[in-house]
Amino acid sequence: MSDGATALVTGFEPFGGHRLNPSAEIATRLDGCRLGRVRVVGRVLPVDLVGLDAALDKVLTETRPDLVVALGLAASEPVIRLERVALNVADFTTPDNVGAVRRNAPLDPAGPDARFSRLPLEAILAATLAAGIPARLSETAGLYLCNALMYRLLGRLRPAIPGGFIHLPPLPGQIAEAIRHAGGRVAERGASLASMALELQARAVEIAIETTARGADASAVPNA
Amino acid sequence: MSDGATALVTGFEPFGGHRLNPSAEIATRLDGCRLGRVRVVGRVLPVDLVGLDAALDKVLTETRPDLVVALGLAASEPVIRLERVALNVADFTTPDNVGAVRRNAPLDPAGPDARFSRLPLEAILAATLAAGIPARLSETAGLYLCNALMYRLLGRLRPAIPGGFIHLPPLPGQIAEAIRHAGGRVAERGASLASMALELQARAVEIAIETTARGADASAVPNA
Amino acid sequence: MSDGATALVTGFEPFGGHRLNPSAEIATRLDGCRLGRVRVVGRVLPVDLVGLDAALDKVLTETRPDLVVALGLAASEPVIRLERVALNVADFTTPDNVGAVRRNAPLDPAGPDARFSRLPLEAILAATLAAGIPARLSETAGLYLCNALMYRLLGRLRPAIPGGFIHLPPLPGQIAEAIRHAGGRVAERGASLASMALELQARAVEIAIETTARGADASAVPNA
Amino acid sequence: MSDGATALVTGFEPFGGHRLNPSAEIATRLDGCRLGRVRVVGRVLPVDLVGLDAALDKVLTETRPDLVVALGLAASEPVIRLERVALNVADFTTPDNVGAVRRNAPLDPAGPDARFSRLPLEAILAATLAAGIPARLSETAGLYLCNALMYRLLGRLRPAIPGGFIHLPPLPGQIAEAIRHAGGRVAERGASLASMALELQARAVEIAIETTARGADASAVPNA
Repeated sequence: MSDGATALVTGFEPFGGHRLNPSAEIATRLDGCRLGRVRVVGRVLPVDLVGLDAALDKVLTETRPDLVVALGLAASEPVIRLERVALNVADFTTPDNVGAVRRNAPLDPAGPDARFSRLPLEAILAATLAAGIPARLSETAGLYLCNALMYRLLGRLRPAIPGGFIHLPPLPGQIAEAIRHAGGRVAERGASLASMALELQARAVEIAIETTARGADASAVPNA
Repeated sequence: MSDGATALVTGFEPFGGHRLNPSAEIATRLDGCRLGRVRVVGRVLPVDLVGLDAALDKVLTETRPDLVVALGLAASEPVIRLERVALNVADFTTPDNVGAVRRNAPLDPAGPDARFSRLPLEAILAATLAAGIPARLSETAGLYLCNALMYRLLGRLRPAIPGGFIHLPPLPGQIAEAIRHAGGRVAERGASLASMALELQARAVEIAIETTARGADASAVPNA
Repeated sequence: MSDGATALVTGFEPFGGHRLNPSAEIATRLDGCRLGRVRVVGRVLPVDLVGLDAALDKVLTETRPDLVVALGLAASEPVIRLERVALNVADFTTPDNVGAVRRNAPLDPAGPDARFSRLPLEAILAATLAAGIPARLSETAGLYLCNALMYRLLGRLRPAIPGGFIHLPPLPGQIAEAIRHAGGRVAERGASLASMALELQARAVEIAIETTARGADASAVPNA
Repeated sequence: MSDGATALVTGFEPFGGHRLNPSAEIATRLDGCRLGRVRVVGRVLPVDLVGLDAALDKVLTETRPDLVVALGLAASEPVIRLERVALNVADFTTPDNVGAVRRNAPLDPAGPDARFSRLPLEAILAATLAAGIPARLSETAGLYLCNALMYRLLGRLRPAIPGGFIHLPPLPGQIAEAIRHAGGRVAERGASLASMALELQARAVEIAIETTARGADASAVPNA
């Protein structure tokens, strides 16, 4: 990737009763950083299904990125989760931040059933693990706004621009607060109590940008 | 669906060290049954990624079905799992029954990224739950042979023919045998010890056929 | 065990919003049965921490059992769970059926910290698995009424009388109803969607009685 | 606790194929630290069931602690896990570091069935959560060496000396290494991929020592 390339990192606002969203924390934290020859621009998007497309379009127009890493929170995820695919469906009962819910609604009635990530997922996975940060590939980005953003992003970007979506675990403080809120008593909920420190999450996102900027093949998806 | 309609139910052979596969048990058990005006034909398919397409084509040519419900085992699944979508990827490290493994290989280099189920998933879900049988919709069929079969099936069937894939939990006897094999000591493995009795599984598959045959809309997927 | 021996099986009423409790279903179903030379008496106990001791004492006085198998529901358990030990603590935030909650309250301020089961757990485990029914040993019976009943029972029975506690999974219909109640949408909750058919559960309890009556050593606990 | 009080922190060597053990890392890291008026002594114990008692006795004799926090690794635990109780049983099929296994063996044939922690667990829980570190109380310390150490420790310490056991999650690097070792492909294993950064773990142990040294009541166990 040429000198002066721009990497766009997007996060989401907090939602669903959470006070924080690690994706917004990281987008804000990385905004303005340089990673090698890449300049990072961080933006926070609204948790608003209807308004999301216009918000994304505005950010893309303003920032004209050479690569895009979109981020979101996965509430019960213990590791950095590299999404392979976005589906052309929205289906969620937890309202978004403006009160919308959806049941089996197509995101784009004229669009394809799904779109594969155009990030070099295998290379990002290998580099993240080599840095001592737990990560995995994922076959589903859910059917909430994270999936909707990924689907829209991949339809909107020119094919030559690498882009995709990464789900992040909760922050330790979010889990501690949730347990306090429950009076210190949690049923044994396994993975739903997992978290990851912000520093590790931010480093993983930097690795994703650096790996993509180096021009690694988008090899974790077959026909990307 | 007209009188004398044919419903094809496919199962898979046992694989991965299992002695049984509930999907094969059910395909065999339902073979020759009548459900209302529908005649059921059950067939067992090989766990052989390369040979799977030809085996499926042969079964479809022989049976000329009016609807297809393909079945497979999901080893850690506690409920009947109705798959929404098949992805154009194979990625598995547990060899199939002829020793093949795959890493991010497209199933069809010229095919679309994914294909949505053409079964009336919402109606099947509602009817299954109403019968007292636990079930859920699923966003991923995995990247093993179950997904490959579903992807192929949906590419091969004429659009007017409803078809799709349902994952089944293990049988109780399979879990009991696995625990015995481990000397009676199991780490607390949560969902991976879940099972469902064959009678309930078979009834769920009948409900899927009956609901589909009644012409319910394929409403769990947006653009089906 | 001599001819005409009596086995007491206790279940609990439904609680916590459940309409059914498999333990009550089984206690009722087995009441009056004969298993070989053993006569089974089934009784249902109230979910009332304060009233539990008197209710248990009354049942023991009335039925004068030669062995006791107490049963209860474990809401997220996929298999028959043979409890090793009861602790001298109650700690629960979900009110019992008369509204009581407890936080780190001793069950008996003068009692020992814990009491081991006096059922032949290893032999029951082996026989249950051999019958094709998934089962496991467990290190904790929780801190709700199941544990309280087990602790009380083991303090109340003469040492020569075998007794203990077995946790049961939900019934399939309970899980189906819970999913319907959630509008057919469940987050991926793994083990919390697991269930077991009533027939298998009842057979497992019969096996526990038969195995205990045959005088198997209480070998799953070290100093029983 | 008086000036110049000594807090003993013990960890375990790596075991079961792990290269690291966070409990040993923390015992080593805290050794020689001062926390307020408390001097911390850290020691690493062998994963050797038979040799454990003598090793513990030697450490206690040498260090003459005023409070003891014993630590160990819980391989699938996402949070700091404060153990309530140790049972008088060893039962494990994964050999310890000298090759021993046990099946329902009493730790002390003349000992009580269980011993409650003598740390102020509720106060430690509250302080840990208030510091933003996820934590929970636990009803079982397992039946491996962690439980054996806790049982022995509580039998060996004078009742006036607070002591107990805390289980720690894996370190992020351990999970990353395990995923790499599996070729970057992990079945969705939920909680078994959870980890916590060493800094948070070490801070949680400091909080446990500080809270105990302040003389908080051992209030999470009823008769402590």
